[in-house]
Amino acid sequence: MSSPDSLDTFLHAARIRVDEALERYLPRPPACPALISDAMRYSVFAGGKRLRPCLTLAAADAAARRSPELRHAQGIPGAPRDDGPIGTHLALPAACAIELIHTYSLIHDDLPAMDNDTLRRGRPTLHVVYGDGIAILTGDGLQAEAFALLAREPVGTDAPLVLRKLRVLQTIGDAARSTGLVGGQAIDLQAAGQGGVQLTLDGDGLRAMHAKKTGALIRASAVSGAIMAFATDEFVDAIDRYAADLGLAFQIVDDILDVEGNAHELGKTAGKDESSAKPTYPALFGLEPSRSLAADCVARAKQTLVDAGVTEGWLAAIADWVIERRN
Amino acid sequence: MSSPDSLDTFLHAARIRVDEALERYLPRPPACPALISDAMRYSVFAGGKRLRPCLTLAAADAAARRSPELRHAQGIPGAPRDDGPIGTHLALPAACAIELIHTYSLIHDDLPAMDNDTLRRGRPTLHVVYGDGIAILTGDGLQAEAFALLAREPVGTDAPLVLRKLRVLQTIGDAARSTGLVGGQAIDLQAAGQGGVQLTLDGDGLRAMHAKKTGALIRASAVSGAIMAFATDEFVDAIDRYAADLGLAFQIVDDILDVEGNAHELGKTAGKDESSAKPTYPALFGLEPSRSLAADCVARAKQTLVDAGVTEGWLAAIADWVIERRN
Repeated sequence: MSSPDSLDTFLHAARIRVDEALERYLPRPPACPALISDAMRYSVFAGGKRLRPCLTLAAADAAARRSPELRHAQGIPGAPRDDGPIGTHLALPAACAIELIHTYSLIHDDLPAMDNDTLRRGRPTLHVVYGDGIAILTGDGLQAEAFALLAREPVGTDAPLVLRKLRVLQTIGDAARSTGLVGGQAIDLQAAGQGGVQLTLDGDGLRAMHAKKTGALIRASAVSGAIMAFATDEFVDAIDRYAADLGLAFQIVDDILDVEGNAHELGKTAGKDESSAKPTYPALFGLEPSRSLAADCVARAKQTLVDAGVTEGWLAAIADWVIERRN
Repeated sequence: MSSPDSLDTFLHAARIRVDEALERYLPRPPACPALISDAMRYSVFAGGKRLRPCLTLAAADAAARRSPELRHAQGIPGAPRDDGPIGTHLALPAACAIELIHTYSLIHDDLPAMDNDTLRRGRPTLHVVYGDGIAILTGDGLQAEAFALLAREPVGTDAPLVLRKLRVLQTIGDAARSTGLVGGQAIDLQAAGQGGVQLTLDGDGLRAMHAKKTGALIRASAVSGAIMAFATDEFVDAIDRYAADLGLAFQIVDDILDVEGNAHELGKTAGKDESSAKPTYPALFGLEPSRSLAADCVARAKQTLVDAGVTEGWLAAIADWVIERRN
C-alpha cells in the first residue's frame, strides 16, 4: 500500500477532493466583495503541494482503519456519507481549514514588511498583483474563514462529533497563535534583525523556531485528521510524534532545496536564505550532515508508525516523499 | 437600573473584569516570544472603551435575568461560579475574544498599507513602535488567539455548553471573515482607490460597508453574550436587531466626531476622513441629518428591547451612551 504508485494515486485523489471542497467553502459575491473573493482564490488555487491537507486525510484514513466508532460517526445526521478513503469525509473541513491558514501565512510572509518575496509557486505573489493593503486583508480573511469553517463543518449536533470539532478547533488555534506559527515567524523576523532585537540562533534555537513556524501546523494537520476519525488518545499521541519528526524533516529539506535548487524547480526565488543571512540547517551543519538529519527524522517517524501498529495506508510513504521531493 | 450612574458602575466593573481576563488569557514567555507578548499587550491594554466586551456582558446579563436554564449551566463542571453580574462568567471568554479581534483589526487598519495612522488612543500606533512586520504578525496572532480562546473557554464537556460554544465560534467567525469585518474593510480600501477598482459609495453603499466593517462584530458581541447565557432563539434575534441599530448609530457618531472632534479628545488624528476623501455620513447627508439618523437608530434599538420585554439591565443605557459619547 505504500509503493510510490499508490501514494501518487492517493495524493492525486486527495488534492482533487480538497480543491473541490475549498472552492465550495470559500465565499463568493454578493456575500463578500469580488476583489477579496478573487484574491483569496488567486492564492488558494496557486498549485501548492497540499502537504498539510493530504496529511490530515492520510491520518484520518489511518485512524479510521482501526476505529469501530467511525461506523457510528458515519450515521451522524447531516454528515455526508463517505465517498473516498475510509472516514476521511469527517476530516475534510479540518484539512481545508489548515490549508487556508497555511495560505494566509504565506501571503503575509511574502509581504515587503516581512520576507519581501515577489515570486511564489511560479507566479507573482499576491501583494505584487493586488497591493499590500489588499494582501494583508486577504490573509486576515483566510484565517477567519478557516476558523468559521471549523465551527460550521461537519454539520451535526451529535455530542461525540461536537466535542471532536472543538478539540480540533483548539488544536489548530494553538498551532496558529503566538505559541505556534506566529511565534515562529516572530523569531524568524528577529533573526533577520526586525523588531529592535537581533537574535542569533544556534542549532537548538533554529530547531525551536522551526518547531513553531512550520512544525506546529504540520503536527496539527495530522492530529486533526486522527481526532476527526475518532482515534484513541494513544493513537493521536503517536500521530503527533510522527508528525513532529516529519515536520522537522520537511523544514531541513526546504533549507537544502533553497541552497541546491533553482527558481524554475522551486517556483520561488532560490538562494533567498543565504542572501538574507537567514539561519538554515545547511549553513549551521553543512549539506551532508543536514541530509543525514532529515533522513534520521524520517526513519524515526516511520518507526513511530510501526510501534503504533500502522502497517497500511499512506503515512509512511508521505514521510519518504517529504525527503525525496524536488520542490 | 438604567440611570447614567448605574451604567458607569457597570462599565467600570465590566472593564476591570475584561482586563483581568485578557491579561490571564494572553500568552507569556516562554510559551511565546517576549516581543510578541509585549506587542500584543501594548495594543490590547491601550485604554480602549471596551464597547464590544461590555455589550457582550450586558447582553449576557439581560438574557440571564430571564433564563431558568442558566441555573443549570452554573453547575457545569470546570466552569467557575459566577462572581459578577448574573451569568456573565460564561460570556467572559467571548467578550475577550471579540476585543482581541477588534484590536487586531485596528492594528492592521492603522498600517501604512491601509489607513496609515500614526496615533491611536493617544499613543503611537503599534507599527510606529515595532515596525510593520511585527505589527502585521501581532495582529495575526491576536486573531488566532481569539479563536483558540473561544475553543478552550469556558472549560467543560457538558453538551449544552459545548453546542453554545460552537455556535458562538461560528457567529464570531462569520463576523470576522470576508462576509463581515474583512469584507467591510475591503470596500473601504476600494473606496479609497486601492486594489485597482475605485468604488464610489452612495448612502446605501456606505450603510452596507459599515454593516460589515463595524456592524457585524458589534452584532456578534451582543449575540454571543445572549447565546452563552442560554437565551432562547427568539431573544437572540431581538438582541441581534438591537445591536444592528446600535452598531449603525455608533458608526454615524464616529463619523460626526471625526468632523467635530480634535485629536486630544479622540486620541487619534481628527479630520482624517475628510482629508482622505473617505465617504462618511456627514459628507453624504450633512451634520444635522446625520445626528437625526443616529438618534433614530438608538430609538429603534431601545424599542426593540421594550418589545422583547427587556425592562432592566444596561442595554438601553448603552444605546444612549453610544450617541452621547465624546470619543
